[in-house]
Amino acid sequence: YRIVTLPGDGVGPEVSAAAVEVLHEIGRQFGHQFQIDEQLIGGAAIDATGQALPEASLEAARQADAVLLGAVGGPKWSDPQAKVRPEQGLLALRAALQVYANLRPLQVHPALAELSPLKNERLQGVDILFVRELTGGTYFGAKQRGKDFATDECRYTEAEIERVVRRAFELARGRRRHLTSVDKANVLETSRLWRSTVQRLAGEYPDVVVEHQLVDSMAMLLLTQPSRYDVVVTENLFGDILTDEAAALAGSLGLLPSASLGEGRNALYEPIHGSAPDIAGQGIANPVGTILSAALLLRHSLQLDAEASAVEKAVDHVLSKGPHSRDIGGEAGTDEVLTAVLKALR
Amino acid sequence: YRIVTLPGDGVGPEVSAAAVEVLHEIGRQFGHQFQIDEQLIGGAAIDATGQALPEASLEAARQADAVLLGAVGGPKWSDPQAKVRPEQGLLALRAALQVYANLRPLQVHPALAELSPLKNERLQGVDILFVRELTGGTYFGAKQRGKDFATDECRYTEAEIERVVRRAFELARGRRRHLTSVDKANVLETSRLWRSTVQRLAGEYPDVVVEHQLVDSMAMLLLTQPSRYDVVVTENLFGDILTDEAAALAGSLGLLPSASLGEGRNALYEPIHGSAPDIAGQGIANPVGTILSAALLLRHSLQLDAEASAVEKAVDHVLSKGPHSRDIGGEAGTDEVLTAVLKALR
Ligand SMILES: CC(C)[C@H](C(=O)O)[C@@H](O)C(=O)O
Ligand SMILES: CC(C)[C@H](C(=O)O)[C@@H](O)C(=O)O
Repeated sequence: YRIVTLPGDGVGPEVSAAAVEVLHEIGRQFGHQFQIDEQLIGGAAIDATGQALPEASLEAARQADAVLLGAVGGPKWSDPQAKVRPEQGLLALRAALQVYANLRPLQVHPALAELSPLKNERLQGVDILFVRELTGGTYFGAKQRGKDFATDECRYTEAEIERVVRRAFELARGRRRHLTSVDKANVLETSRLWRSTVQRLAGEYPDVVVEHQLVDSMAMLLLTQPSRYDVVVTENLFGDILTDEAAALAGSLGLLPSASLGEGRNALYEPIHGSAPDIAGQGIANPVGTILSAALLLRHSLQLDAEASAVEKAVDHVLSKGPHSRDIGGEAGTDEVLTAVLKALR
Repeated sequence: YRIVTLPGDGVGPEVSAAAVEVLHEIGRQFGHQFQIDEQLIGGAAIDATGQALPEASLEAARQADAVLLGAVGGPKWSDPQAKVRPEQGLLALRAALQVYANLRPLQVHPALAELSPLKNERLQGVDILFVRELTGGTYFGAKQRGKDFATDECRYTEAEIERVVRRAFELARGRRRHLTSVDKANVLETSRLWRSTVQRLAGEYPDVVVEHQLVDSMAMLLLTQPSRYDVVVTENLFGDILTDEAAALAGSLGLLPSASLGEGRNALYEPIHGSAPDIAGQGIANPVGTILSAALLLRHSLQLDAEASAVEKAVDHVLSKGPHSRDIGGEAGTDEVLTAVLKALR
């Protein structure tokens, strides 16, 4: 299998190196060969080539069976006046691969409930799969900057909404058959199109219970009744905000993976945490989010279900028994956590 | 003092009637006369006149010393295909009065910490003043609906940003001198203008510590480190989402007031909860958010500081000793809570 890795910036290289080790261990045990092709993206790419997503990286990503990304961005490249920004590399990659459905599963590991800001009784049974639209909306709409004003356009076609909502319905069928669609239909035109599209598709999935929530209410309900939700589908910007909010429930952003899927098998996998420049280079980043992203890669792009489950089980074991990295109250470095996962895999 | 009330829909009439009683009691005790002029808005106005904000309501609001609003909206009027929606009345009113700075204070009453979804230790010292831009952004930008697409434009001028950010800086000076500005400057052009405007103004307020957060991070930080924040300023849509999220921390939306201020004294006061159609007409809505909004009205529009504090003290007493409405774990109806507040005022 040909996997392109895009370590990127900050802790990105540290956590993606750990995930690659896990893939190689899976290869040894299950008799697969993972060919890793490391490429540049983000600030690292800007420094080396002047571009946030060099042509070579994009070409390699297109040819690969799957793409594993670390993180992009950092203070070095975040001058609001800057012409090229690391984030543009990530956005360009998402758009080029047309990975329109960003899956962000959220569960709270029982051993870590103490770390969550939420009271433990609220966390009982929390098991949400967010499906965030990833290649449309205000992220990719027309932008203008005048002398004394600026604009961003949010634009959605019905087809863009339909494909991601269908994916969410299909995913709900494999779970608890409950879909929550989040919009701001009382104010936004794009949200009204979103809502009517969901309503139309609901007719094709009579076995799935559908509810609509306004984004502001949903921001509240995720805290007051998180266990009520199964699959939650929403547009790009709302998904960005709500998934980070929900991630806080898990106790640390460092734990959570994501998969960004399009029509083909080739897809993009990344932890939901950022580049964490404050702890970069210290060997203390939590590799779990990236390792679990590699598990999603095994499952969704390579159809290696048993292998994915083996990784998830090993991580689960380490989260239960330790060692724990600092973000989850332990003292272990990236390598120690990795070693423990590899050991649990054997 | 001439006060226009706009009870609106759902529980709006019940909670605004309670707040009016409190104003009259304050009048009796402090020797003021409040002349209440009740007007239509929202679904109630649509039913009566076909318009969400009839000309008469707007004219009365313009002439008043202050405006107290209940809530607007409900399933009866929320067909996405509808030509007139209750929310339009509220948005039109905000725009017409140019109340660009929406103040949403958040504190967690010690007697209610148990109700909060957050662990009690995280709630220690939480005291945030959100300043949400209220008359610009994607709420008021150009909208388009084509056969198979829709658009919403987010637009900000530098002047629109400057006036609300200045207000936030001034408010920070009266508090802990810490200002957090929230944007999505790594993706949005309007956010980059927002950030550079805040950076420019920061030079004029060297005594205020300024930090910038991305909206997705902020959604997380509000849960993990809520006590870190003092004044938080952000654009309209981000403010809508973040203030509802933060409101969940207080244990119930029913407790929280807001003040929407412009350049003049005339301003708009409303609880942050919605019309709650599910409990409308049952006499069980919590009137505290609206009563505290009336306290903000006394302070900000009428400069009646002692009177405002008297209301806040009375509410504080009732929250400490009961009776409590259902949303905060009690069994009291709207009237019982009101009676207790009036008694505490005497
Ligand atoms: C880095 C940034 C552009 C990105 C986003 O906003 O999509 C990140 O926050 C994420 O959620 O993956
Ligand atoms: C009713 C709705 C238009 C309104 C808004 O989004 O501003 C409400 O959610 C609020 O926060 O006051």
